[in-house]
Order: sequence, then structure tokens, then C-alpha cells
Amino acid sequence: MNSIDNKTISAIRVLSAESVQKANSGHPGLPLGAAPAAYTLWQYQLKYNPKDPKWDNRDRFVLSAGHGSALIYSLLHLYGVGGEEALTIEDLKQFRQWGSKTPGHPEYGHTIGVETTTGPLGQGIANAVGMAMAEAHLAALFNKEGFPIVDHRTYTIVGDGCLMEGISYEAAALAGTLKLGKLTVLYDSNGISIEGSTDIAFREDVPARFAAQGWHTQVVEDGNDVEAICQAIEEAKKDERPSLIQIKTQIGYGCPAKQGKASAHGEPLGVENLAALKENLGWPQEPAFFVPDEVYAKTAEFAEKGAKAEQEWNDLFARYEEAYPELAAQYKEFYEGNGYNPWEDAELFAKPDKPNATRNLSGNCLNYLAKKIPNFFGGSADLSPSNKSTISGSGDFSAENYAGQTLHFGVREHAMAAIANGISLHGGLKPYVATFFVFSDYMKHSMRLSALMKQRVIYILTHDSIGVGEDGPTHEPIEHLAALRSIPGMTVIRPADGCETACAWATAVTNDGPTALVLTRQNLPQYPESCLDAAKGAYILRDSEKEVPDVLLMASGSEVELIYKAADELAKEGIDARVISMPSFELFDKQPEEYKEQIMPKAVRRRVAVEALTSFGWHKYVGLDGALVTLDHFGASAPAAKIFEEFGFTVENVVETVKGLF
Amino acid sequence: MNSIDNKTISAIRVLSAESVQKANSGHPGLPLGAAPAAYTLWQYQLKYNPKDPKWDNRDRFVLSAGHGSALIYSLLHLYGVGGEEALTIEDLKQFRQWGSKTPGHPEYGHTIGVETTTGPLGQGIANAVGMAMAEAHLAALFNKEGFPIVDHRTYTIVGDGCLMEGISYEAAALAGTLKLGKLTVLYDSNGISIEGSTDIAFREDVPARFAAQGWHTQVVEDGNDVEAICQAIEEAKKDERPSLIQIKTQIGYGCPAKQGKASAHGEPLGVENLAALKENLGWPQEPAFFVPDEVYAKTAEFAEKGAKAEQEWNDLFARYEEAYPELAAQYKEFYEGNGYNPWEDAELFAKPDKPNATRNLSGNCLNYLAKKIPNFFGGSADLSPSNKSTISGSGDFSAENYAGQTLHFGVREHAMAAIANGISLHGGLKPYVATFFVFSDYMKHSMRLSALMKQRVIYILTHDSIGVGEDGPTHEPIEHLAALRSIPGMTVIRPADGCETACAWATAVTNDGPTALVLTRQNLPQYPESCLDAAKGAYILRDSEKEVPDVLLMASGSEVELIYKAADELAKEGIDARVISMPSFELFDKQPEEYKEQIMPKAVRRRVAVEALTSFGWHKYVGLDGALVTLDHFGASAPAAKIFEEFGFTVENVVETVKGLF
Repeated sequence: MNSIDNKTISAIRVLSAESVQKANSGHPGLPLGAAPAAYTLWQYQLKYNPKDPKWDNRDRFVLSAGHGSALIYSLLHLYGVGGEEALTIEDLKQFRQWGSKTPGHPEYGHTIGVETTTGPLGQGIANAVGMAMAEAHLAALFNKEGFPIVDHRTYTIVGDGCLMEGISYEAAALAGTLKLGKLTVLYDSNGISIEGSTDIAFREDVPARFAAQGWHTQVVEDGNDVEAICQAIEEAKKDERPSLIQIKTQIGYGCPAKQGKASAHGEPLGVENLAALKENLGWPQEPAFFVPDEVYAKTAEFAEKGAKAEQEWNDLFARYEEAYPELAAQYKEFYEGNGYNPWEDAELFAKPDKPNATRNLSGNCLNYLAKKIPNFFGGSADLSPSNKSTISGSGDFSAENYAGQTLHFGVREHAMAAIANGISLHGGLKPYVATFFVFSDYMKHSMRLSALMKQRVIYILTHDSIGVGEDGPTHEPIEHLAALRSIPGMTVIRPADGCETACAWATAVTNDGPTALVLTRQNLPQYPESCLDAAKGAYILRDSEKEVPDVLLMASGSEVELIYKAADELAKEGIDARVISMPSFELFDKQPEEYKEQIMPKAVRRRVAVEALTSFGWHKYVGLDGALVTLDHFGASAPAAKIFEEFGFTVENVVETVKGLF
Repeated sequence: MNSIDNKTISAIRVLSAESVQKANSGHPGLPLGAAPAAYTLWQYQLKYNPKDPKWDNRDRFVLSAGHGSALIYSLLHLYGVGGEEALTIEDLKQFRQWGSKTPGHPEYGHTIGVETTTGPLGQGIANAVGMAMAEAHLAALFNKEGFPIVDHRTYTIVGDGCLMEGISYEAAALAGTLKLGKLTVLYDSNGISIEGSTDIAFREDVPARFAAQGWHTQVVEDGNDVEAICQAIEEAKKDERPSLIQIKTQIGYGCPAKQGKASAHGEPLGVENLAALKENLGWPQEPAFFVPDEVYAKTAEFAEKGAKAEQEWNDLFARYEEAYPELAAQYKEFYEGNGYNPWEDAELFAKPDKPNATRNLSGNCLNYLAKKIPNFFGGSADLSPSNKSTISGSGDFSAENYAGQTLHFGVREHAMAAIANGISLHGGLKPYVATFFVFSDYMKHSMRLSALMKQRVIYILTHDSIGVGEDGPTHEPIEHLAALRSIPGMTVIRPADGCETACAWATAVTNDGPTALVLTRQNLPQYPESCLDAAKGAYILRDSEKEVPDVLLMASGSEVELIYKAADELAKEGIDARVISMPSFELFDKQPEEYKEQIMPKAVRRRVAVEALTSFGWHKYVGLDGALVTLDHFGASAPAAKIFEEFGFTVENVVETVKGLF
């Protein structure tokens, strides 16, 4: 290792350890161990213009082991990512402080140059797989001989923890199947977990596991060997398969009292150990956060190389625009949109003329919208025939056909959602994914991250209640609406008919964040009164005769039919009911107070909500004086109609419940 | 294959296909393909007394691919599991009907002989790993030379879907690390998934993957070859490692129009194809659900063998009781309990004399209770130092020491929870598991299954709010209380101090189902007024002066401090507040109406709830007229005190909020 490599690595190590020490909180172990790998990748391999961190054709770098955030912040500072906006030494000193640019874990949208939010283990590697899939697809669509417009790689640093999580296995299995040759995983293999040696829980032969999944694998025995790491990355680039490079490192390297120990992982080194680290690395004790000029000179080479690479790409793209003007225009459309506004498209909202399941109506919307929006890229976790999630004639995305638009995720919900996040983060494509609603549990944390990162991922969740019927309680969602509704920033929509389903899709494709479409398996009636107001989350489907109704009836999805019919029965008994269809709590909560009061006047306290799922959350609208026809226990296995009846989802029971309020 | 083997396999196939056909719903593909493997296992290998399906030392059989429920029902009928109570032909005819013993997916506690509820893919194999861990631990504790009191095997049939799910990878990794030699996985490898050939998403070399994880692997090329399957199981039994037997089968075998096709998976064959199946198998067309006497004669051998095995074990146990009376007594205590009643144990509820974090207080409870309850068996997903989840001096459970009581799950939350379900289902041990609260997402579906199966699994979930502080929004739970509270049958408790934490633990160890203990990282005060009423879910910590309070203040956990102090401030302004500590919605909801009215009189509508997590769900108690100090957005990275302050969790803000109601 030459001396400037060494010095820059030491700078990364010291800055990271000092950030953690100053915050008196954080994870120094990974940055100290993985600094040489990260440095080698950035300095010698990453194609990246720090002045333009949003350049489409940049290589992506994902720190899957997000607890090592001090490492990425040190890199972002030293490499000047964001130019004028780049992290400063002052920012590093504000590590983990209120309002700083350097939070405890890397946050997308918060810190320039952070490609995805990581910390929850295994998510980052799955995001990286999504990015590599996006790259492969876009390359297949747009590249022409001599015009490699889309041609970049995805790198991720993972730790033992990431590789223990099932999501990483799922993502790796798909990456291997799809032969994502531009994906390289640098595995920071330090043999230490929080509870001690990884031997206590993780004795597998990791390269053999990846090889079994169709990966190219290499081992670098000395994690401080820049040349060996560089060489391994070069080898990875030559192989057609995704690559795993196991890099054997020492957690907390350089700190004599801590290195190789679990205690290096998640707490500051301590003042004395920090001093010992500096001493050991030949680093001056003072000033704190010191970086020699020659280190900045070295990292400036990266900026120079990157700027040149982007300039070359810009030139290439200019020639591409001349040679393939239509393709070039389409490329821009993929990234910037084509101005299509679903809300102005009457055809989308055309009313179906007969009863249908909202899953089918959703499938129709997806297929219709796919003609207007060219860059959907999605699929199902092996349930597409049930989820109605395939765009007709779109072709399967596979190792043999990256141009295919339809993804086959296999039975891997968790990776599916995280991959969708990666696709969305990559840019240029609109991901959607699908599974049974009950299995939203399996991917819940990735859905949370869609919301935290405000990514426009569309979740198609069919089989939305006991309407599943014969498959029984294991397949019948009960608590899942509440679970998703409670995620901040997740828009959950459970439409009642075709028009509402179209509103749901129009919302989903124009939303600022993720949308969950919750859809029936069984047929539902079409309401003459349903309208675009469904996009307001709740609206009056049929109003009462009186100005102030006797009772407010509220329901979503399949249960709207019950309140609609119950209103007729109640009218016969002189009870004047307002029928409120409420496909989305979140959309309604965003409306002005005036609109809310108009739909649900505060003065009307007789309120009944009907939903064939948990009551949890509904009291916000029915209050202490209302009543609920909901389901606070698990479902059953039988034909759906029978279950609805047995569990009280009948017009009669709704009517009785309303009458009980008088 | 001899003719009676063949005939019995045909009986299984035909019964399964007929059940599905009669229900006009279900999955014939797996039963038709896997019938020979299932038959071979049951007829020739399984140590099981059908007359006593709860015999401690029976081999366990888990149908991880639970959609093949018709297969297990056919087996349970043919092998007479449950004796007089065994499934009848009539039960098979009621497949998937309301109230039948034969629901769409196998349900534990509903159908005799079903060891665990399966259907959500990958759960069953992880349950099986838990069962094998329980067996290994109990064997290490109780077996003496010549007295293999605990000596049984765990078998599971898995499909491609199970092996695509990350949870199966996690569980298999741990099983390999732990060298669970008594675990055998029969992999029904039919190469077909719902969306088509498994090649579209699952090209990995499955045996190589398992070998990389430390498993013994074999391949049986002909899934109809009873002798080869039997031989492979024999080989598996000889090996010290867990075993995977890949059995190549044809989905829908025997049905000419369907076999080898995805369409065989999840829909009835159809009347004509059922006829063709029978024709092809040489089975009489009529009557339906026909089973020849000689088949029953053959399966009766199983009952005879099983009864003999149990009798031998009973004799062995009788001799063991003489030779090792103390151990034998302890064994019984493990299975039947020792009568310890935590509610009568004043020492458990002794009040701490200084502020402490509820995670620490929980750790104290666990360690205290471990002296009273000898059969805890649990651990953390690599966070035990943070979760305070280790029983001091208990020893680590490992391949080298199965007597160890502490589990190291690795960073594998999903498998951890499913393994805990398996341990609980096995019997004899009390599982507990631990991770950060925010990562309850990763294991949510297994938590749901704990609830669905009413298993007493204890979930220790620490770092329960923005009190996490510097780790930031990725590690700060917001929606997780709502998510868990909404699961039917899950008891969620967020205690405010030491006494309430003891109540939480006392509830957890005596509960009928799973309990989630939601605990702080930061120190909390101890309340002189806290008492065992905390077990009622909500109680008056400090009452108002007036009989009818001006306002009800409610909070859980760390936020109780805010309402407690706010009450003082409000008193100064002449507002008389009742301070209600509410550690558990579920426990409160179970109280008699009278108690609820006593705590929260319906007439008092000024109600304020304070919880540093989502408001979702709280309106049930505050209604339309109350107010909330909650958090409906993601957290931030900073020292905890700063975040609480910035997000309005201050006494001042609570006071202002209350005043806003006047």
C-alpha cells in the first residue's frame, strides 16, 4: 500500500471514530474495519461525479450496513459529494445531533450522496439488487451499439448482520437468477456480532451459499490490502454474474483495546482509545478532525475523474439524441415524466357496467395506465394470476430478456418491497409490487422504508378480508389495514367499486410516497353515485333526506354495499342515514377542516362504521358514542358469503347496530 | 414399489383430490406430487401413536407447505390420528366448510394431529427448527445413559415456496450452526410455482445452499420411489447434521391434463380430470372417497407400532422415575408447571428505589422469574446486551452445549419468532425472544401466528420510542404499538415503572397467548402509587380531588411521567386531572364495563392521551372531543431529551393541550 492510500484510509478511520466520540454515540467498529474497502472502491473504482450526485449514469454506492454511517459521512466529506453542499468537518462534528446533516443512520433525501436509507439490516443489499435490476432494464431498452447510455454498476458494503437477515438471501437468490453482473457486494467479514463471535449463530460458508445462488465469489484475506481489493473488484467486473467479495477485516481495526471485539461495534471508543488509535495509525493527536492537505489532494482525483466521466456521457448522450431522437426523448420521458395527468383522463374513470372484484378492476387500471405511463416495472411475489398484476404483453424480465417489464419475484415479499424501493431510488422507472394483503406483514419493514424515503412504490394487495373465504384465517387479513394505516406517510386505499379503484390508481401514480391498494377477491357492485371525490378519502355516496342526518354510516371497500343497503332499510323505519364511502383514512385526514365537517358533522354523534377487519383505528371517526360492525378476532375457513354472514356482516346486523344507538 | 404401498399412496392422492373437488376450492397439486414421500415417512419412519397424539416423545411432523392441507387431512384420517376423534371420511367431505375440522390450511388446536398452523410459507420449517431445538435442549437436560427419555425427530415437508422465503434461509442457517441432527426436511421439489416454472425466479442449487449452511443433503430423483425415500431418511438419521432430502416430484402427479403444470397447484382438478386421475391410478370411479379395506389394514400397522413405542417409553419413564426421581419430577414440572403463581409473589413486585429503564427492570424480572420457573428457553436476535434478555449464568445453547438455556438467534428476527412458536408448540419449555421494538416489523407475521395459535411466547421489545435518540428514525418505532395492538389475541404491555414491569411479566408468564413487552432504553421514575392494578390494563395512578374529574389524562410507559407532572401544573390552575396509567389496551378492554366506567367515566369527555408514538388507536379512549399528544410522523436523530422536547413531549405542551379543551 502506498503511503497516500494509507493516509487517506487513516483519515477515514480517524474522522469516523472522532465523529462517534464527539457524539458520544454511534458505531466505530465497521468504519475502522471497512475503511480500506470503502476507500478502494471510491478512489479507484466508483464512476461518480461528486459535483452532480444525481447524474443518471453514476455508479450507485449503498452502505447496507447502515450503522456504519460515520464511514459514509467521512467519504462524502472527503470526496466532496454535493460540491458546495458537501458535508463539512463541522457537519461531521454534528454527527447524530438535532437538525444535522449527519444523522445516526444514513437517510436518503436528508444527506446529499446517500442513495438509500439504511440501518435496518439487509434492506440495503436488497435496494442494491433493485438498482441493478433497474439498470439492466433501462440498458436493455435504451442502449444501442456504440451508445451505452445506461451503463453503470451498483456496489454495496454489507456486514455479517445483513447476510444473516432472510431478506438478503431472498434478494441474492433473485440477483443470481437474473444474472445481475453489474452488482458487486463487498462483504465486510469481521466475524463479530453484537453478542460475540459470529460462530455463535452464523457458521455458514458464505461464498458457497452465494455460489449456490449463481454468484461469482472471491475472498480477500487481508482487508487492508488495497491492491487485492481493487483487483477483486476488477475480476468482479469481468464476470457475467453478480459478485460477492468476502473481505476479511477486523472490527475496530487500529484501536488496540477494541479491535476484533464486539465492544468495538456500537459504542464510542472512549477518549483514551481514540488517542491510542491515532497513535497507532501515526496520526497527530491534535487538532481533532484533522485531515492533511495531501489527503484532500488525493480525493480530488476522484472528482476530476468523475467530472470527466459525466462530461463524456453528456457528449455521448448528445450524439445519441442525434442518432436516436425518439429513444432519447423516451429516455427523458422515463426520468422526467410525460405530463400525463390521470385526473384529466375521463376514460380511466369510465364506470364498469357490472359487478366486479376490485382486484380485476385494479388490473384493468394498471393495464390502461401502462399505455399512458411507459415505465412501469413490477410484478408479484408469485401470485400474479391472483393479484391481477401483469401488464399484458409486457414480457418477463429475466436473465435472457432484460427488456421485459414484468418481474417475477418468487415467493419473497420482503425482498420484493425492498427491491421496489431500490428501483424507485434508481430513477427512471415506476415500480409496483403485488401479493396477498395478509402477507404485507412479510414486507412491512420495507413498506415502512418506502414511506420514510417517500418513494412512490405502488403496493397491490389483493384478497383483502374474510372475503378470501376457504383459505381460512391464515390467509384472511384482520389487523393489516390498521397496521398499514398507522405507518406515517403510507397512503392506504380500499376502494368500493370501479370508479374508486380508478381514483386509487390515479392517486398512486401521482402520490408523493407509497400507496397501498387494498383489493377484493370477490365481486362488488358498481355505484352510480361513486365519483372522483373518492380521492378525498371519504365522501357522501348517498346523502340523507334531512340536512342533519340521524346517523352517519361509514365503510370502505366491500362493506360499502352493506351500509348502502342498510340505509334503505333504515329509511323504511324512519331513520335517515348518510352513506359515507371512506376508501382512505389518510386522504380524508389531509382534507381541510371544512370538508371534514361537511362529510362528518361534529354534531352528529350517531355514527356506525362497517369494515370486515379490525375495529382498531375507527374510533377516530365514530368516537365514544358510535358503534362498529368490525372483526376483532381471526377469520375462518368457509365460502366467503357464509363467513360474512356468520360474523355479522349483513344488512340486518348493520340495521340493528344503528337502531341500538337510538 | 409393492402393491399395497402403491394402493395406499393412491388412496392419499384420490382422497386429497376429491376433498378439493368437493369443496370446489383448494390445492391438489402438492398432495398428488408429495403423497409417496408423506406416505413413506408416516408408514415406515414416524414414531407416533395415533391414539395419543400428545405423547411427549412422538416424532413431530410439520407440513410447512400448508396449502397442501388435503394431504395432511388424508394422512390424519388414514392413520386414525386421535383415535375416536380422528378425522372421518365425512370430515374430508367437509373440507373448507364452515365449522369443519378440515379448514383450508392446517390449524393447530383445531384439528387433532396438526402440530402447527401453516400456510404462510416458510413458517413451518422455522417452527420445525424450534421443535428440534426444544428436543435437543430437553434431551441434554434429562437424558441419562440408558434413559433416552427425550429422543424424537422432527420432520417437515417443504415446497419451493417455503425455500424461497427468507425465513427458511434464516431458520436453516441456525439449524446448521446448531447441528440439529434430528431435523429432516423433505423438500417436495416439483419445479413449479404459481407463476410458472421455478426457473423464472429460483434457479439456485438448493442442496448446495443447504450444504453451505452445514446440512447433510441428498437427492431422490424419483419422487414415487418409496424405497429410495425410505433409504434417504435412514441416511439422514445417521448423520449428525440436519438433513435436506430433495425429492423430485411432479406437481399434480397422476392427473394427465394437469401434472407438471402450474394449473395443478391451487384449483380443483375438475370433474373430468378427477375421473382421469382415478382411471390413471387404477382407482374405481365410484364410490367417491373410496378407501379399500386393505389400505386401512396397512395404515393400522402404524398405529400398532406407535402404541408399542409409547408403551416402551412409558416403561422406560417408569424405570427413569425410580433411577432418577428428581430429574423425573423436574421433567414433569417442565411439561406441567410447578404451581408457581407470580401474582402471589410479593418479592417480584418489590419497588425499585431509583429511576431505571424498563428494559433493565424487565431484565431483573426475567432473572428473578428464572429462579421460579425453570424452563425458560430464549434469547435475542443479536441484541441481548441492549435487550437485557440474558438469564445470568444460564449458558449458551450451542452445538457443543445443548444444555445451555440462552439462545443466540443471530440477526434473524423472523425465524426467531417462528422458532419460538415451534419451541412453544413442542412443549416443555417457555420461549422468550428479544429485539428492538422497531424490528418487530421483521417478525410480524410470526407474531401473528403466535396469536392465532395462542402460544405463550414472550416478546421483549426494547428501545420503544423516540427515546432511542441518536440512532434516528430508522430505529425509532412510531407505528409499532398500533401494529401490535391491532393483532387479535396479542397482549401488548408498555409499563411505566418497575411495578408495572413486574405486572407485565406476571401477565406474560400466565397469559393464554403471546405477550409483547414494550420497554424503554432510557431511565424512568418509579411511582409510589403504581400497583398490581396495572395488570388491568389501565388504572388510576393519581386521582383528582373532585369526584368527577375535569379531565382524564392517559399515557403509557415513559409518557406517564408527563401526565403525572402535568396534573400538578393543572392543579395550580384549578384544573382537576385524573392521571391514568394505561400500560395495555387489551388488558383494559377485557375488564368488566363497571371497572372501565370507574376508570374512564363516559360523562367525562375532556380526555388527553400522551404517547410518543402514533395516535392511531387512541381515539377509542379519547373520543371525538379529546386531544392527543402523540407522534404521527417519523422520528429524528439526536439525544433523546432533545427529540422529546422538539416533538412536544413536555409537561408544558401537555398542560397547553389540556387547557385547549376548556
